[in-house]
Formats: sequence, C-alpha cells, structure tokens
Amino acid sequence: MVDCIIIGTGPAGLSAALNLKTYNKSTIWFGSKSLSAKVLKAEKVVNYPGMPSVSGAELFEAFNAHVQAAGLEITEKTVTMIGSMGNSFMVLADNEMFEAKSLILAMGVVSAKLLENEDRLLGRGVSYCATCDGMLYKGKNIAVLTNDPKYEHEVQYLAELAAEVHFFPAYRNPGVTGTNITQSLDLPVAVNGENRVESLTLRSGEVLPVDGVFCLRNAIAPATLMPGLAVADGHITVDRSMATNIPGCYAAGDCTGRPYQYAKAVGEGNVAAHSVIEYLAEK
Amino acid sequence: MVDCIIIGTGPAGLSAALNLKTYNKSTIWFGSKSLSAKVLKAEKVVNYPGMPSVSGAELFEAFNAHVQAAGLEITEKTVTMIGSMGNSFMVLADNEMFEAKSLILAMGVVSAKLLENEDRLLGRGVSYCATCDGMLYKGKNIAVLTNDPKYEHEVQYLAELAAEVHFFPAYRNPGVTGTNITQSLDLPVAVNGENRVESLTLRSGEVLPVDGVFCLRNAIAPATLMPGLAVADGHITVDRSMATNIPGCYAAGDCTGRPYQYAKAVGEGNVAAHSVIEYLAEK
Repeated sequence: MVDCIIIGTGPAGLSAALNLKTYNKSTIWFGSKSLSAKVLKAEKVVNYPGMPSVSGAELFEAFNAHVQAAGLEITEKTVTMIGSMGNSFMVLADNEMFEAKSLILAMGVVSAKLLENEDRLLGRGVSYCATCDGMLYKGKNIAVLTNDPKYEHEVQYLAELAAEVHFFPAYRNPGVTGTNITQSLDLPVAVNGENRVESLTLRSGEVLPVDGVFCLRNAIAPATLMPGLAVADGHITVDRSMATNIPGCYAAGDCTGRPYQYAKAVGEGNVAAHSVIEYLAEK
Repeated sequence: MVDCIIIGTGPAGLSAALNLKTYNKSTIWFGSKSLSAKVLKAEKVVNYPGMPSVSGAELFEAFNAHVQAAGLEITEKTVTMIGSMGNSFMVLADNEMFEAKSLILAMGVVSAKLLENEDRLLGRGVSYCATCDGMLYKGKNIAVLTNDPKYEHEVQYLAELAAEVHFFPAYRNPGVTGTNITQSLDLPVAVNGENRVESLTLRSGEVLPVDGVFCLRNAIAPATLMPGLAVADGHITVDRSMATNIPGCYAAGDCTGRPYQYAKAVGEGNVAAHSVIEYLAEK
C-alpha cells in the first residue's frame, strides 16, 4: 500500500507529485506521459508567472523536464472506479487494483458534448479560454458559444477585441450588448477547417465563415467515479485545505471548479499535497 | 478611481496583476521593484512546476522578465492604511490617497513580531510612516526600527527633524550616518506609556525614554492596516474565491495562510483576479 495515489497528470497532479516526492512519500501517479491534452494544445499562455508568453507545447516541455528532473514516474492506466475503505482507498485502473492511504483527485474537467471537429481543431482556432487566447483574435471574426450567463463578461471582453462576434448563448435572454455582436439562437453543430478553423456549421444548415470559435461552457464531470464524493455543479466540493467530504481524499485543479487556470491548478496541487502530508502524519 | 488596487509584489500579487492586465482592468500595484525579498533570498526552489531546481535569484529574474513583458508598472509606496467606503476603497500610501473599486491584498505574512503595546499606542507616539508623522517629532527624541535597507532614506529624513534618533536596524551593515543617530543592535521588545509613548524597553532590560517610535517594516499586520478585516491566527480569512469578509476585497498568497508556497501564491493570485473581474462585472 502506497502513501498516496494521485489521479491526473495535468498541472495540479504534477504540483502534488513534486511535493510528495520532496517529502519522500510513496505514490502511484496515474495519467498520461503527454501530461495534459489541454496544456499541450493551448495556443498561447500569458499568465503563468515566470513564463512570459509560452505556447502550450513549450509549457508541456517545461513541465515534462520537471517530471524527468524530479524522477517522477507516471502509470499510464485509466482509473475506472474508486472505493473508500475507511482507512484506505482501493483504485481500479485498467482492471487492476491499487491501494493507498490517501488520494489526490486531479483529473480535470471533461466537456460534455463536443462540436464535430472541436477536438481536432482545439488550439487551431478553437479555444476554451477568453483570457488566454482573446488577444489572438484582435480585429478578427469569431464565434462565441456559451451555456451559462456567467461567461458574459468574457463575451464582452472578446467583443472589445474582435471585429465581429457571432454569439450563440445556449439559454434565454442573454445580457450581452455591443454593435459588433450578432446574437443567434441557432445551434452550432460542427467546426470546419483543414488545419485551422475556417467556418462553423449551424443546425439550420447555414455555414458561417469565422477565424476562431470560443467554447465557454460549464464542463460536466459527474463524479460517478467515486460513490459518496460530494460534488456541486459538476465540480468536486473542497475546502481551503483541498479536502473533500471523504477523510484522506483531496482534490485539486479544474475538477474543483473555476477559474480553469494553470496557476490555480499548481497552487491547489501544492496545497493538496501538504494536506496529505499532514493527514499521513496524524494517522 | 481605478478598477483594482493590488498590494504586494510577491508571486500572488504578480499573478493577480498579470490577469487583471489581460482583462484591461486599470490597476495600481503597490510594492517593490525587487518584487519579493523572500523570493530573492530563497536558496533553491524545486517545486515550482515548470522550473526544475531554480535559485531564488533565478526565479526573481523569471518573474521580473514577466513583469517587463506584460508591461506592468509597480508603484513603490508603502501602504499604511486602508478604508472601505462601501462601494470603493481608500488606500493611504506614503501620505497620498488612492481610490479603487476593488482590492487585492497580497502583502505576504508579517514576519516581524509586534512590540508589546505597539498596537495600543499606534497613533499615540507609534507611527508606521515617516513622511506622514515626521513633522510631529521636530526637535524630539525618537526611536526608529527598520527591517529593510529601503527605509534608510526615511531614517535620514527623520534624523533631519528629530533632536535625537535611536536607530534599530534588524539587519547587518546599515548605511545610515548622522551625528544625532545612535545605532544599536539591541532588540526593542516593548513600547511603554499610558496615553502616549514614554519609553522603549530593550531585550537587555534597558529602558530608553523616547517621545515617539517609528516602526518602518515591510509588512503591517492586516487587521491593523484595514479595520474590520476578518483575520484568524494572523492570517486573512478567505473563502474559495479568495473573498474576504469585506465585499470587493480579496486576498491571496502567504497572508491567507499556510502552506507558504510560491505555487499556492500564484494560484490564489489568479483566482483573486478572476473574482475581481466577476465582481466588477456585477457592479
């Protein structure tokens, strides 16, 4: 039985793994050797302190170099089930059982329904983050899809930059206004383009030429993975120490809620690891 | 009136400033162009994700390069008082008033322990600001305590006014000279006086009669700085959105509690900035 199982190799999982390693805790770290598709595909990151304006690929290289330098090992298995056994946790990964005294959940969020080609064109005109990529579309023609009014200030921000914004709110009575914003109740179904976004296909059949598509959505990640885990609005409920409602189980990164930001994720991974160290010391 | 005043130029303040800049929010960022003495003096940092094993000086260089690349401006003034005005905040820095719609406190933790009675006699002979109160001690006998060479010009200024200055630097080789300056390596432990400062007790047991005591330190205890701010165990109380008990006032980094970690600080600065953006949008 190891001290801690970490699930997820994005910035939150990496930050947790680095700190547990420093404290000589035994761990199994589940995820991917390519760390995080989201990081890898990011077009440009300007707000990770200490790395002015890096591409996702460059940030991946830096993270990966840190993994190597720290001698961290990644177990490339997919976790399908977690059970809390009172004093320990059983984790089922690729049909194999693993046991740990504590747990850090850092698996990110998964967007529910994707547009056709959305995944393929992510980082090539498709973006999930107005803060990160807005500047790239200065004077351009873009589409913005939202499913929650809370993103409207981001839509407004994008409208200040772009020449033209085609706004697709998936709800009634949106509160966005601007002379360059065209609102539509039609439903986007596909992004088109060979190497970069060229247009958006709507349910009506209309094909709208655009330079970029921003998908600002509430990601839905039902925590069916771990029965009994408290979630709210698709995010794992945590306190300031990153503790979930289950003793010994902590969470960090996008899976705990917005903002979906690398800096937030590394911060929470760090705090979760320190909480695990305290939890193990008390046991 | 600016959108936000950020207090502190450590990793938390930097992270907040970067994100507010991206969103085109107007800010005043108080702190030091050397960013953070704590970062600068760190021997080795192994757990800031993406930078395997850097010295504090290297981390400072990376942060400073980011400040320059983002075109951020730092205002080198010491904040001595903050007032909440309901819909805005008044910030007193080097005897000048600044106004903002929102506030991010990222001033780190106060390593300096308060003198006994310091709090009670603040404004009754105890002062945190040479510019503000120096004139009150013309021809008087004062003590000046500092923990950073950057305050030495204030010590010099006070020496031009006061009859006698007892200077207590909390570091080696201070560069202050003057015929009326008596330098001491003894440690002040208490301010004495019923309604006004009468004397200073040193660790050696010596009691020094003085008319005033200037405490020129890098950080002032948050509750002293901002009346009404909720604190617990010397840390500012915040929720997961980094909101304090005062609407529009957020906090990030070491001042919100342990672990004192760069990754945590940049994460919290990021979250605080996004909370400010939402707060401003709602207003």
